[in-house]
Amino acid sequence: MTVFTPGTIAVIFCAQRTDEDDSGYAQAAQAMETLAAQQDGYRGMDHSRSEDGSGITVSYWANDAAAKAWRDNSDHAAIRESGRAKWYSSYSLHVASIERSYDWEK
Amino acid sequence: MTVFTPGTIAVIFCAQRTDEDDSGYAQAAQAMETLAAQQDGYRGMDHSRSEDGSGITVSYWANDAAAKAWRDNSDHAAIRESGRAKWYSSYSLHVASIERSYDWEK
Repeated sequence: MTVFTPGTIAVIFCAQRTDEDDSGYAQAAQAMETLAAQQDGYRGMDHSRSEDGSGITVSYWANDAAAKAWRDNSDHAAIRESGRAKWYSSYSLHVASIERSYDWEK
Repeated sequence: MTVFTPGTIAVIFCAQRTDEDDSGYAQAAQAMETLAAQQDGYRGMDHSRSEDGSGITVSYWANDAAAKAWRDNSDHAAIRESGRAKWYSSYSLHVASIERSYDWEK
């Protein structure tokens, strides 16, 4: 739970998993989270996956250049190909600029 | 899986559920999804919840005025109070303007 400054880029990735290769997927997801966190301009990640296999990952970036650099990262691009080949049946991806941000804790 | 036009507003709601009142929460979540879909400028919703109780809901709106009207909807505001009192231990909310949007299907 974090508040972001205006202009932070949110990359919203909504995907439907196949039921193929659970262990390969889990390993890749963990590797990508670790790799993303090492990139310049990385600001954080939120992730959730339902039992029906639909999931949302939101990654946050200092600016659009940082988000694009992550998109173009060669390890990330290679994993994306595996995602299309094996792990996902469909996905959507939205790149959005944060205008307002709040958080709350009990 | 949908592509949105630039300027569509994404409201990213990341929340941690308590283990209180599952049935009341499920009922309210369904009611809010139905009510949101009836609002002017509603463009869609993505939702995912992990077994550990962390969840992400992204709602999409034609413009900022529509997103704010939904925030200020009195039924929505009342449910938000119940959320703070019972269902959530913490949450963050980011309002972001979509710049690019893609989708993919196998």
